[in-house]
Amino acid sequence: MLLIFDLDNTLYPTHEQVIQCREAAVKAMMKRGLPGTYEEIRKELNKVIKEKGSNYNQHFDLTVKRMTNLSRREQLAIITAGVTKYNTTKQELMKPYSETTRVLKKLKKKHNTCILTKGKEKKQWDKINRLGLYPYFKNNVWIVSDEESKETAIKKILKKFKTTNALLIGDRPDSDIKAANKTGIKSAQLMKGPYKNIKGPEPDYKINNLKELLKLLKSADD
Amino acid sequence: MLLIFDLDNTLYPTHEQVIQCREAAVKAMMKRGLPGTYEEIRKELNKVIKEKGSNYNQHFDLTVKRMTNLSRREQLAIITAGVTKYNTTKQELMKPYSETTRVLKKLKKKHNTCILTKGKEKKQWDKINRLGLYPYFKNNVWIVSDEESKETAIKKILKKFKTTNALLIGDRPDSDIKAANKTGIKSAQLMKGPYKNIKGPEPDYKINNLKELLKLLKSADD
Repeated sequence: MLLIFDLDNTLYPTHEQVIQCREAAVKAMMKRGLPGTYEEIRKELNKVIKEKGSNYNQHFDLTVKRMTNLSRREQLAIITAGVTKYNTTKQELMKPYSETTRVLKKLKKKHNTCILTKGKEKKQWDKINRLGLYPYFKNNVWIVSDEESKETAIKKILKKFKTTNALLIGDRPDSDIKAANKTGIKSAQLMKGPYKNIKGPEPDYKINNLKELLKLLKSADD
Repeated sequence: MLLIFDLDNTLYPTHEQVIQCREAAVKAMMKRGLPGTYEEIRKELNKVIKEKGSNYNQHFDLTVKRMTNLSRREQLAIITAGVTKYNTTKQELMKPYSETTRVLKKLKKKHNTCILTKGKEKKQWDKINRLGLYPYFKNNVWIVSDEESKETAIKKILKKFKTTNALLIGDRPDSDIKAANKTGIKSAQLMKGPYKNIKGPEPDYKINNLKELLKLLKSADD
């Protein structure tokens, strides 16, 4: 069977790691003189993220500009304290779910595995590299931009592997499950991360962690 | 006395660290399938760096494009292997010279200290943060672009500190020492890094490491 994995919140806890990085960054900016309480700064930062989208690369810059009347030189000392802390924290935290690599290792013996993820190409690849996931996917990594749907990519993947017998594993009903349903392949929704309670297209299977995939695929074999 | 420190190759071994990061990155790209010997790839990379300047952010991208006829998807797997390795190596290596913080701690008791460096603002600040140098300089960080001279900044710094009694410590005759000579302040050239054998304007003092500053300033006191 061909297994198509989503990356964020499916192979590693993206959402939790981002939250921890932002927390550490805000504290670093406060320590360097950004006025306001933690809650006030988080509120303003969240507003900026909502306005500009998560791939905008000046969240801290704009937050600090809006919250202070400091000179540009003083602002930069604060902004970069946040950016540096965000990046060093990211490097420390960047790990897959504890079961991810063990499960992938087992699956790889019987199945083809690929990644289908949304985001910026270099950013997504950087995550795959840091997470140590390259050996399980090699060049079978498909990245679509935030504006594209995953459907077209699924069709290309099925064509490349010359099969229609595929299972997509992802966390987002509005993206992963929807695309699987539309292209007629099976889908398993991982009930983790920020989308676990969002209503949307129904998956064929619901799993609480990746280990459950092993059982699922074993019973499909029988 | 007011002490004006250059950053790169003066407070930490920039040149050596960059070389090590590039080495690690090239090896990571080879491991991921970039064809060519280590020497061939380094030669092409060096050509790109010379052509585009050191602050261009697509050195690996262009090197891989020039060396392969692979599809963009395959190129990205290789390019990002280099970028990720470069960045993780940078985070591991980023440390001041072994004597830097001890010397700064001692100097700070008697003197005002500031940084005057060339480069991109956020990139230079990121280095200061990662090196742990912020406590010794606080908001006394002056960053000029690669195209600007350091002279104008020195004049502003002297005005801010209301003094002309200043010593600039740097490694580059064509930038640090030249600017000090032109503005009439003293200069000490650190004889380390890639500029140590380059002829240029003469400094007032030559030092082999930052510890020698302590002696120098002590004898200036006497």
